[in-house]
Amino acid sequence: MTLTFDLAGLARGYRDGTLSPAGVAGEVLARVAARGEDHVWITLRSRADLLADAAELARRWPDPAARPPLYGVPFAVKDNVDVAGLPTTAACPAYAYLPARTAPLVERLLAAGALLVGKTNLDQFATGLSGTRSPYGACESPLVPGLISGGSSSGSAVAVAAGLVAFAVGTDTAGSGRVPAAMTGTTGVKPSRGLVSMIGVVPACASLDCPSVFAHSPADGLAVLSVIAGYEPADPWSRPFPAPPPVPPAVGPLRVGVPERPEFFGDAAAEAAFADVVKRLTGLGHRLVPVDLTPFLAAGRLLYQGPWIAERLAAVGDFAAANPGELHPVTRQVLGGGSGLTAVDAFRGLYRLRELRAATRPAWSAMDVLAVPTVPTTFTVAEMLDSPIERNTVLGHYTTFANLLDLAAVSVPGGMTAAGRPHGLTLLAPAGTDPLLAALATAFVSPPDVVS
Amino acid sequence: MTLTFDLAGLARGYRDGTLSPAGVAGEVLARVAARGEDHVWITLRSRADLLADAAELARRWPDPAARPPLYGVPFAVKDNVDVAGLPTTAACPAYAYLPARTAPLVERLLAAGALLVGKTNLDQFATGLSGTRSPYGACESPLVPGLISGGSSSGSAVAVAAGLVAFAVGTDTAGSGRVPAAMTGTTGVKPSRGLVSMIGVVPACASLDCPSVFAHSPADGLAVLSVIAGYEPADPWSRPFPAPPPVPPAVGPLRVGVPERPEFFGDAAAEAAFADVVKRLTGLGHRLVPVDLTPFLAAGRLLYQGPWIAERLAAVGDFAAANPGELHPVTRQVLGGGSGLTAVDAFRGLYRLRELRAATRPAWSAMDVLAVPTVPTTFTVAEMLDSPIERNTVLGHYTTFANLLDLAAVSVPGGMTAAGRPHGLTLLAPAGTDPLLAALATAFVSPPDVVS
Repeated sequence: MTLTFDLAGLARGYRDGTLSPAGVAGEVLARVAARGEDHVWITLRSRADLLADAAELARRWPDPAARPPLYGVPFAVKDNVDVAGLPTTAACPAYAYLPARTAPLVERLLAAGALLVGKTNLDQFATGLSGTRSPYGACESPLVPGLISGGSSSGSAVAVAAGLVAFAVGTDTAGSGRVPAAMTGTTGVKPSRGLVSMIGVVPACASLDCPSVFAHSPADGLAVLSVIAGYEPADPWSRPFPAPPPVPPAVGPLRVGVPERPEFFGDAAAEAAFADVVKRLTGLGHRLVPVDLTPFLAAGRLLYQGPWIAERLAAVGDFAAANPGELHPVTRQVLGGGSGLTAVDAFRGLYRLRELRAATRPAWSAMDVLAVPTVPTTFTVAEMLDSPIERNTVLGHYTTFANLLDLAAVSVPGGMTAAGRPHGLTLLAPAGTDPLLAALATAFVSPPDVVS
Repeated sequence: MTLTFDLAGLARGYRDGTLSPAGVAGEVLARVAARGEDHVWITLRSRADLLADAAELARRWPDPAARPPLYGVPFAVKDNVDVAGLPTTAACPAYAYLPARTAPLVERLLAAGALLVGKTNLDQFATGLSGTRSPYGACESPLVPGLISGGSSSGSAVAVAAGLVAFAVGTDTAGSGRVPAAMTGTTGVKPSRGLVSMIGVVPACASLDCPSVFAHSPADGLAVLSVIAGYEPADPWSRPFPAPPPVPPAVGPLRVGVPERPEFFGDAAAEAAFADVVKRLTGLGHRLVPVDLTPFLAAGRLLYQGPWIAERLAAVGDFAAANPGELHPVTRQVLGGGSGLTAVDAFRGLYRLRELRAATRPAWSAMDVLAVPTVPTTFTVAEMLDSPIERNTVLGHYTTFANLLDLAAVSVPGGMTAAGRPHGLTLLAPAGTDPLLAALATAFVSPPDVVS
């Protein structure tokens, strides 16, 4: 079986009978075994459990015409999202608990016929963008030996990139659903905050968190998003957006904002790759609008230099205080920055963000979508371990502002740079534009034939 | 001149030539003088300045048909709102400054032809609901000798109630634009947060503050609101609502929520008055929906029992720390409750509010408007001074939740109780419903003739 686990291929195989859930489950496990220890999984489900689920799928939906949209689609879940019966560790063994209830977003996937393979590795407490801050080991990008996978959703991105699953659930606060997509050559969908329920997800910064999706294409990402999206009355962060369609809508030419002075931290190959990406966007008929990113980047810096670092303590501060020895040393150092901040600091930070958000409004009058490199440059695992906090800040340069400014985003592969490193394009627009972003991203990765 | 300074009467007088700006200015000053020391004014403008403005109005707009909507309409401004050339004290003499720029909302009023009479007294730093926390003296309600005016916009409410001006600008965080309306028998319009610019207004709790309007009727309140409303790019709290119309729109029968178990703190006369008010609402053809106010009231309690008390320190904490002796003793005591709260406390408070807001959503599915007593009971100045904090909490029982839950509100007179105390009705609905509330309030105070 040399199948790529994309949704269309799986659906075709199930429809014409060349695939069965049990066969796909077996193939997944064979691929996982073939990779050996890649630090992707924290909990891999047993062959028996996978085959039992596969049998149940086949029994429940024998009629190919009546099958739900994700019938027999193998997927992975980041290990800060609850699945009843499997431990949730958040990559901190001492923190682990056995949830009684599956997160509603995963329940929706299972109800749509998807086949859960296991729970994936992450930067501890979803704090980090590198994939190197986990006691379960550092994930590497399948694209380049020794290169970081990106994080915090490291295992989920690699599970997709390595072809082990069709899609994977991640989360995204500072860029955890986008940086790993860029580093592994996958699509990372960071939905509008409140579009997908956060119930059953370990909070990082609760006011900024959202679940995310890694997939083999933006169209697949949108199809998964259309299954997991939905207003959840019991989730105080849930917002009543219109339901996203399962396939990207048609869009005409857009005004695409691009950074006036893009920053690559000296990576000339990445700079050239982004210039090529921008050329491809104009080739699709979109009009470029130079944008001053100053207020966007200033908003992004608030995430670690403002009170939101203390927000992480609202989630895990009590645990961290009681179990200091159980934390990853870098995580402990990062969280430490949040103690000592006062409520007045918190409100002043909220005011500053409000000001910066207002300062981005003129840019949004001039553009429909903002296009930025997902990461300005890339690092090896060794480089990351050498400077874990400074380089994390570099990785988040173009991602940290998105949730603070209430934007939706999607990261798509932008090819390899001349230096042989992966490059990602992130498209962003105000909350609620998820289908638009998926449509633009789909055209970017699979340009329609130009008819003259 | 026995004219009530309502907008229609003033417009008619100016149109038919029986009124002139100079004549109205003189009448205003005569009325102010006739009241003697009523603690309404912190800065009363001079006769010369008023007459100069009046002359300028007549010179600028000689043609009655071309006059702006508030031509020659006398008004007052709460002394936490900047007017260039007049000190802003926020009822704290040591805090006073001379602003270089007039608040945009006042600029809009002046551009619409309104005639500024002066700056009014308030509970210091707009912290309080009684009108008794000011070094400039305690205002009393013109309706009952010895009764509090309510606060914090005490002087603005009394200036309208006593017929000194046509309308007055106030502010409202916890109920400062509604409690004084109920206590003085005026209309208090508390707009949607972000509908009116907060630039040039001394913040109390910046994330919750909004300017407000006291007027002789809800129709007048809406007319003033239509002048001062407008998106202000430089104000980070400004929101792009549709412009409110200058006259109340037509509305059909509504679903009006009323408290399932209203609380009057033992005031049987107020309870009977509210029952009568509710009867009048049904008489207008509206359908009553009993509402469990538990999550509303819990949200309201967060204002003084959650982190928002620390938010007041973000505004005046540095001043208060440097000048403790300059604060009103009760204000000092209230602000003291905000020190010692951490950023984690602030985020946890925001989460709790988010949960409570979600808990109010089912109620908003069942009703269009919520009707509550503005104040559950009333107090004399002596009673208030006797127990300034506990009784403040009682006054805010039905008001403090509005801004936390992002509701618009209007308080209208509900008549006098059998005990001879004023009673107010507050109508509330989600942000953006200001015209709807004005329409319902207008029908309540001036029911249309019923045609059978």
